[in-house]
Amino acid sequence: MSDAELTALLRRVRPVDETARAAAQAALDAKTKPRGSLGRIEELATQVAAIRGTSTPGRLSAAIVLAAGDHGYAARGVSAYPPEVTGQMLATFAAGGAAICVLAREAGARLVVVDAGVRAPIDHPSVRRLRLGAGTADATVGPAMARADALAGLAAGAALAGEVVADGAGIVATGEMGIGNTTAAAALCAALLPAAPEDVCGRGTGVDDAGLERKVETVRAALAANLPDAGDPVGTLAALGGFELAVLTGVCLGAAASGAVVLLDGYVTGAAALVAARLAPAAAGRMVASHRSPEPGHALVLADLGLRPLLDLGLRLGEGSGAALALPIVHASLALLADMATFADAGVADAGA
Amino acid sequence: MSDAELTALLRRVRPVDETARAAAQAALDAKTKPRGSLGRIEELATQVAAIRGTSTPGRLSAAIVLAAGDHGYAARGVSAYPPEVTGQMLATFAAGGAAICVLAREAGARLVVVDAGVRAPIDHPSVRRLRLGAGTADATVGPAMARADALAGLAAGAALAGEVVADGAGIVATGEMGIGNTTAAAALCAALLPAAPEDVCGRGTGVDDAGLERKVETVRAALAANLPDAGDPVGTLAALGGFELAVLTGVCLGAAASGAVVLLDGYVTGAAALVAARLAPAAAGRMVASHRSPEPGHALVLADLGLRPLLDLGLRLGEGSGAALALPIVHASLALLADMATFADAGVADAGA
Repeated sequence: MSDAELTALLRRVRPVDETARAAAQAALDAKTKPRGSLGRIEELATQVAAIRGTSTPGRLSAAIVLAAGDHGYAARGVSAYPPEVTGQMLATFAAGGAAICVLAREAGARLVVVDAGVRAPIDHPSVRRLRLGAGTADATVGPAMARADALAGLAAGAALAGEVVADGAGIVATGEMGIGNTTAAAALCAALLPAAPEDVCGRGTGVDDAGLERKVETVRAALAANLPDAGDPVGTLAALGGFELAVLTGVCLGAAASGAVVLLDGYVTGAAALVAARLAPAAAGRMVASHRSPEPGHALVLADLGLRPLLDLGLRLGEGSGAALALPIVHASLALLADMATFADAGVADAGA
Repeated sequence: MSDAELTALLRRVRPVDETARAAAQAALDAKTKPRGSLGRIEELATQVAAIRGTSTPGRLSAAIVLAAGDHGYAARGVSAYPPEVTGQMLATFAAGGAAICVLAREAGARLVVVDAGVRAPIDHPSVRRLRLGAGTADATVGPAMARADALAGLAAGAALAGEVVADGAGIVATGEMGIGNTTAAAALCAALLPAAPEDVCGRGTGVDDAGLERKVETVRAALAANLPDAGDPVGTLAALGGFELAVLTGVCLGAAASGAVVLLDGYVTGAAALVAARLAPAAAGRMVASHRSPEPGHALVLADLGLRPLLDLGLRLGEGSGAALALPIVHASLALLADMATFADAGVADAGA
């Protein structure tokens, strides 16, 4: 993807339709319930209306794009798991036995598994190969990837999002897997929010105190080695990010440009969303935060994006698991907007409260 | 229901099976995910295992029992809506146009609509008539109902719960409708927690400051008129409660006695659950809190019952709407327990973290 092509993509991310939001709220206010009594569910339905540009968005199909990649950060002892697990989990996603496979089936969502650059590729017909390399370089000594790789990831992710939307998805959820990728997310957040490394590093999927300290030191070293410019999100992504983060940033942009609802998972997908919003600020209005993870940096990302999470269940798995758990709530909000009777239909007295 | 029959019902509410809970946790720990990484979802799945008495509870069907009743409290100006709305909404439930009808369909749950005692009964084949009267008396001048009415409500609710469990429901959710019933809930909570009236009264479905002050005064007057004995939960229920609250207390007890998961909605169903737990303390372990409502008393009830809500979405509708929104999360937790691959199945390295 050239810089000109990126600019064209970013121009396609338009602000949401506030007229549609207001019309959807008016429609909800006419339903047989006290006004506003469904709280965040009403905000959600009206946000989807604003994103879709209609007060009657109807029901939407969902696809979950789950991208995996390996990280040079993993060599720094920042994870409780060895890097081989990324590829092993990619195979488990393909085989259908992982948590996200179960949750996607439960939610009736299509699951699209992407190899964005694991160390050892696997050969499985259900894995999309959008490989940017065999794991990133160690960002504590130089950029994690070349700028051209980051741009290629953005292009591949955006094209994939466009494809799943063309295939019928009105909701595109993001998920990720990659040993070491909460460190990559922390480095990106430290650079882009900006924030102190100790404020954006957490225990990921379960490191101990020493591992957490190594994460903070690793993020510090990556910032020192790359001196990222927050005004250059692509350069920052290349310097500090990961292959799956690049692809997921592209997915956010492509889905937003295509008019889909972008449903985020946890911290790592939040970091990709942050890069996307730095490139195209209007993208944030097209995002829904499925949950708040225990990672301390996640709350900072959500606040920056202006998003309030639907769930807060202590989830720290990733894979898109929180997004899949929140999907029925999104579907329910749209069913209420579409199907509830009005006071006039039902002959019920309206307090107008 | 005689006192002896009530005692027999209460004896059937047994503590949950901690062995099954531990075995379910061990099964989850062998799945391809970091231990504990699904947070509250794992707690939920293992609680269901403990309730069902097996580490492999499988999938469960759900029924939502939605009980409506009218209240003498309504004459005190404690609601934004006139009392006629209770019966109008009962008709809307029967016709399928209310929020809970849409949400129950979305969640694949059976909806059982109960007339526990609205002022003007409606004639509709899908409404179960378990009428204890045509609305309660004004509790600010004497008991809301006779003790015999409360016992009849407990019996009817317990029998209905037993029936829906026999028909296949493994999850019994509670829902309610009744203009004035957050005042009844507040009075019950003030007496049973105990708590000061101003700490358990909120805005319900939307009263203004003056209405809120009338609610507090009404609860104070009801306590003064009845001098309820917290050691006599049935007497307290009769003095301060409502017909739908009596039936829903019976539903909680009957469902718990039948081994079902009791899925609570908001404040009013929480007050019924509190009465049930005062009668049979082991019932609390068989309950799941779907959401936390903005009513200040609800958090006190949940803390008393030892329950942490799954959702916190500003819902203040009632009807069982929060329970229906949380149902997919319960289903998802059970699907994960049943269907995820283990580390051994998948050949993935386990950190044992």
